[in-house]
Amino acid sequence: MNKLLIVTTGGTIDKIYFDDMSDYQIGEPQIGQILEQMQVGFDFEVKAIMRKDSLHVTDADRQVIHTAIAKSDATHVLITHGTDSMVKTALTLADIKHKTMVLTGALNPAKFRDSDAVFNIGCAVGAVQTLPPGAWIAMNGCIWNPKKVKKNRKKNRFEAT
Amino acid sequence: MNKLLIVTTGGTIDKIYFDDMSDYQIGEPQIGQILEQMQVGFDFEVKAIMRKDSLHVTDADRQVIHTAIAKSDATHVLITHGTDSMVKTALTLADIKHKTMVLTGALNPAKFRDSDAVFNIGCAVGAVQTLPPGAWIAMNGCIWNPKKVKKNRKKNRFEAT
Amino acid sequence: MNKLLIVTTGGTIDKIYFDDMSDYQIGEPQIGQILEQMQVGFDFEVKAIMRKDSLHVTDADRQVIHTAIAKSDATHVLITHGTDSMVKTALTLADIKHKTMVLTGALNPAKFRDSDAVFNIGCAVGAVQTLPPGAWIAMNGCIWNPKKVKKNRKKNRFEAT
Amino acid sequence: MNKLLIVTTGGTIDKIYFDDMSDYQIGEPQIGQILEQMQVGFDFEVKAIMRKDSLHVTDADRQVIHTAIAKSDATHVLITHGTDSMVKTALTLADIKHKTMVLTGALNPAKFRDSDAVFNIGCAVGAVQTLPPGAWIAMNGCIWNPKKVKKNRKKNRFEAT
Repeated sequence: MNKLLIVTTGGTIDKIYFDDMSDYQIGEPQIGQILEQMQVGFDFEVKAIMRKDSLHVTDADRQVIHTAIAKSDATHVLITHGTDSMVKTALTLADIKHKTMVLTGALNPAKFRDSDAVFNIGCAVGAVQTLPPGAWIAMNGCIWNPKKVKKNRKKNRFEAT
Repeated sequence: MNKLLIVTTGGTIDKIYFDDMSDYQIGEPQIGQILEQMQVGFDFEVKAIMRKDSLHVTDADRQVIHTAIAKSDATHVLITHGTDSMVKTALTLADIKHKTMVLTGALNPAKFRDSDAVFNIGCAVGAVQTLPPGAWIAMNGCIWNPKKVKKNRKKNRFEAT
Repeated sequence: MNKLLIVTTGGTIDKIYFDDMSDYQIGEPQIGQILEQMQVGFDFEVKAIMRKDSLHVTDADRQVIHTAIAKSDATHVLITHGTDSMVKTALTLADIKHKTMVLTGALNPAKFRDSDAVFNIGCAVGAVQTLPPGAWIAMNGCIWNPKKVKKNRKKNRFEAT
Repeated sequence: MNKLLIVTTGGTIDKIYFDDMSDYQIGEPQIGQILEQMQVGFDFEVKAIMRKDSLHVTDADRQVIHTAIAKSDATHVLITHGTDSMVKTALTLADIKHKTMVLTGALNPAKFRDSDAVFNIGCAVGAVQTLPPGAWIAMNGCIWNPKKVKKNRKKNRFEAT
């Protein structure tokens, strides 16, 4: 795999707790230090382009994400994104040719004990090296075609449509 | 993906600490409860066939692993294994047809904070769904052809031969 | 030490993350399972009397806490409480005689990796067995007389007045 | 409390896993970084004087520990020590006057998820500030007079004699 481009956009995966404001805020992206800690054997570059809860990601934001990926030379891209509108963003990226793009995130912040963040990142990393070009989603341990998946908000999980 | 067959053979990933004997032992396989915790969206079955440090896995043991996989109906198999002789076992499995088999393990026990276990399992899970049939290795965040990888014991990591 | 009475009132220590509402909530008290996990050698009983962020703990709430403790037979009491008004509650309890009461909490939820929750609970548990009767605070690894401590909100820590 | 002297002697608390040697070894003391992470409000100094499994701590070693503490100006001392001969070492220190000395350790390494290390350190920290001079043990959430406690090796816990 060529150098992996990692685009971070916010989401629960990067939420941290600020006692000050008695609230959770999106902090700096965790994925870089997680991959360093795991001593991965591939090169990567992290581009942190926004810190948004994905309920607030707009179509204009999606264009920013689209442009950042489309203009890059990278052939392999991992995008961390909030889970609520991850499918929508994936569908927006689907027209970008010659790149394998995998979106993932987490249902619990990476800073939480027992978070799914590290597992999902691992999943996405394994898949991005082996999938054909196109936009894909890695959540709940499954690799999804974004046309065939939705987030079930009640059950707080991704499932086939 | 059809029901994922998970074969566990021991290795560092499942090492736990017994203060009693002031020593480590390979405990029961961690992967099942990790996948439950991550609420994965696929069915799986764990077959715990041995608990060996892979320095002590013999060719007879490899035959046992080979048979357990070859006679199964599963088309997708994840094997957890010690890292020291993982490549050797992978090469032994390479002749099994029509199954995608991914071997992984960990350089630090799953019970450790900051272990690579969950990340590696995620990696293997992502890859097993997307790889073509054959035997593969998922370590250090990379997917390897077992003919082209070795464990560098000094650096304690997997790298291309 | 006689049976330790543990009174839980909420606070950051028990905050958990609900992705559902993209928000945090105070969940069920963590202290009981933490002490079970640590296999403590003393008997204890947990009375969960409210789940409040301590910015919202009222004087009426303080009376409820006061009554629950004063009418109990327990000679040793540990109270988990939000950090913002912990001092105020401690001062309210100071007139209760013949009981050693230690208040503690956490600046990061117990569910967080690297939380101070377990350390603070340990601190309070060690202190409650050895302090004379009265109301005390255990935060930042120090045992405080509530008349001589305040929470520095800017620095997010407790310090001497 | 004056500046806390922390003397580290090894033990399970500081055991880490070396995949290289397929074994657990005592690594550098964890207590300093744990206390930093907990942002404790007191000054402390760590003196790492040995790295021994306490089954191998000899009477000569105990003299070394005794001397290090007796010649120090510190009035408050926390000693981390293996659990197997912790009581014996505590009894050796009992004749040192005018110092409150609390010994603790862990039944699982600090590097383990779910270790008792942080809780026990908290316990010892809370107790050392409030106990009268003498040698004490903090294990299983209890503060023990070393003359009245032993480690039950079968049950892997400390209990009254």
